[in-house]
Amino acid sequence: MSVLKPREFLMIPGPTPVPDAVLEAIARHPIGHRTPDFSKALKSAVENLQWLGQTKHDVFVLTASGTAALELAIFNTISPADDVLCVVNGVFGERWARMSEALGAKVERLSAPAGQAVSVKALEQKLEADKEKKFKAVIITHNETSTGVVHDIQPMLAAIRKHGALSIVDTVTSFGAVPFPIDEWQADIVATGSQKALMLPPGLSFVFFGPRAWDAHKLCKTPRFYLDAAKYKKSMSADTTPFTPNVSLVMGLQVALQMMKEEGTESIFARHKRLQKMTREGLKALNLELFVAEDCASSTITAVYPPANIGVDVIRKGLKEKFRILVADGQEELKGKIFRIGHMGYVFERDVLMTLAALESVLIDNGHRCEKGAAVSAALRA
Amino acid sequence: MSVLKPREFLMIPGPTPVPDAVLEAIARHPIGHRTPDFSKALKSAVENLQWLGQTKHDVFVLTASGTAALELAIFNTISPADDVLCVVNGVFGERWARMSEALGAKVERLSAPAGQAVSVKALEQKLEADKEKKFKAVIITHNETSTGVVHDIQPMLAAIRKHGALSIVDTVTSFGAVPFPIDEWQADIVATGSQKALMLPPGLSFVFFGPRAWDAHKLCKTPRFYLDAAKYKKSMSADTTPFTPNVSLVMGLQVALQMMKEEGTESIFARHKRLQKMTREGLKALNLELFVAEDCASSTITAVYPPANIGVDVIRKGLKEKFRILVADGQEELKGKIFRIGHMGYVFERDVLMTLAALESVLIDNGHRCEKGAAVSAALRA
Repeated sequence: MSVLKPREFLMIPGPTPVPDAVLEAIARHPIGHRTPDFSKALKSAVENLQWLGQTKHDVFVLTASGTAALELAIFNTISPADDVLCVVNGVFGERWARMSEALGAKVERLSAPAGQAVSVKALEQKLEADKEKKFKAVIITHNETSTGVVHDIQPMLAAIRKHGALSIVDTVTSFGAVPFPIDEWQADIVATGSQKALMLPPGLSFVFFGPRAWDAHKLCKTPRFYLDAAKYKKSMSADTTPFTPNVSLVMGLQVALQMMKEEGTESIFARHKRLQKMTREGLKALNLELFVAEDCASSTITAVYPPANIGVDVIRKGLKEKFRILVADGQEELKGKIFRIGHMGYVFERDVLMTLAALESVLIDNGHRCEKGAAVSAALRA
Repeated sequence: MSVLKPREFLMIPGPTPVPDAVLEAIARHPIGHRTPDFSKALKSAVENLQWLGQTKHDVFVLTASGTAALELAIFNTISPADDVLCVVNGVFGERWARMSEALGAKVERLSAPAGQAVSVKALEQKLEADKEKKFKAVIITHNETSTGVVHDIQPMLAAIRKHGALSIVDTVTSFGAVPFPIDEWQADIVATGSQKALMLPPGLSFVFFGPRAWDAHKLCKTPRFYLDAAKYKKSMSADTTPFTPNVSLVMGLQVALQMMKEEGTESIFARHKRLQKMTREGLKALNLELFVAEDCASSTITAVYPPANIGVDVIRKGLKEKFRILVADGQEELKGKIFRIGHMGYVFERDVLMTLAALESVLIDNGHRCEKGAAVSAALRA
């Protein structure tokens, strides 16, 4: 083994690889945040976020993690004692349920086991049964980061709109990687983060806040200040922020979104779909069992069981020490039971091939039986 | 005028200049946040923050602006209907009063006009008059950024401790520039931000959370999630963060604090005091009237009136266009009435001399009468 090592390569579900042009924008000395130059960058970023989300409505740029974006969504529209339906199939779905409970809402969970999606039908039935229309809001995690399960969100949003509740969607690990036309699909609030498909380091998050969200905002009694939607609306209408923003990341955001615009959504979404297929076929060719069925498999994260006789720790350590490639462990009760490969943002075919080849090497080192070269071949066929 | 321009130089009250070594750390590709390398950087930063604040107690690193640090302080210790005393002498003091009102607290303001400090005596009398001990907490802005007024915080903290209320101190534009031994002065909660004396871009903030803050936390009923102190305590005890942190800025923080440790607090604090004196003497030599009296003048920000016949806009525009030096306008009702020069963090004697010389040039361009070279001479004498 050489002393010189390649740079740590992130195949985890965030942070994800960042393009050099974005790093260069971030590396520049910060400018003043109450200047025309900063306002211009912010305005460009907001317009491109609206383009990416295909929406004409408000979008807020927060200096905070993705969890804060969901908190803005929830704490600005749900009041203590309101009834909320939370669609839960993993760590993040459960997080938003607990967040709603933290403000005093009455939370009902519509759950699926980890690794599975809640079906459209289950949600439709649940909402049809709510004759009194007690549910003020439905919170759904589009792409459950802890397992790599994607919800069939468009018909779910239709069911919510038919019922009349507000829809709040966590798209932290889906936005910018798969289609999500916010206005067409009638999503009321969509929240996401910088360090996933948007090709930035962590530190910013984004909230799309539609007209029905403002209706709920008028009635909302939950205390908030840093995450008060009205403060963001007022400032961002004037191309500025209510509190000192992360200037460096906003400059990087402008560059990243410009790059995405140049590539075009069709190409971006097709690439993520290809990476998903390559990853899944490659893992199967390594004789590994996928954690998630084809019909609800995420385009951005693939979870997989280790072979029965090799620990997740051994695989992760092997990939890290031999190849400096990072993949993620399972979270909470899935820790040590699955590992997760992120393939979103500034990630390409060659990165998936590299990861599969490295994984094959680590598995063979540890006595796993699989056909040499099969993973890469299967990925290339996919 | 040449087409080639020098880099925009920040003499505003934040963001402030960032050392190249810190920018270089930030520019590196982000590493995974659940890795030993990240935990090591976070641990080092936390230890150096404790060193800088001379405290053995908890400190939290938040991915958010300074306002969020105050929100963590207030929303984790004050409940709706609690009585709170807010010491208010400017925009930020007023912000914390409104933040407390936002959660439903009963707020009483102990105010001084903008440009003045609330006296120790006024606070002592107010607290002595509170025989029923109704005030659960007292919130003070150590250094009021909107005016450059510093409170005589040590005896104020002593008065609060004598009364028994919890002390919450905004040190956003003072921490790291002037002495603040947290444990010795018995401050319960101290909140600050990254983009001031700590020589980083904006995007992180910090909360020192002492033992009496935990007592208040136990009783606190205000809803919170992203800014829940207990979540930070749990994660940071394990050298990690409860939510995805701004990895890049934490790496920069580690470097910035290491640089501060190498300089030593005595030298840092003495430099800020010198910069204050140089700025004040230089401005006086330009025949300008200072906004704040000597006895409560900030070491980090100096506010000054423009000459009667020259607008603040003209001065700021002249400094920006001719010299690419940024100074700040007044805020809210002081907009256009004063301008503010920031001199904190990675700022040195030469920067103050440059700013004074440039200001002299802009004033003379606009017909102001002052002795040529007097500002720089006065600053050098100081």
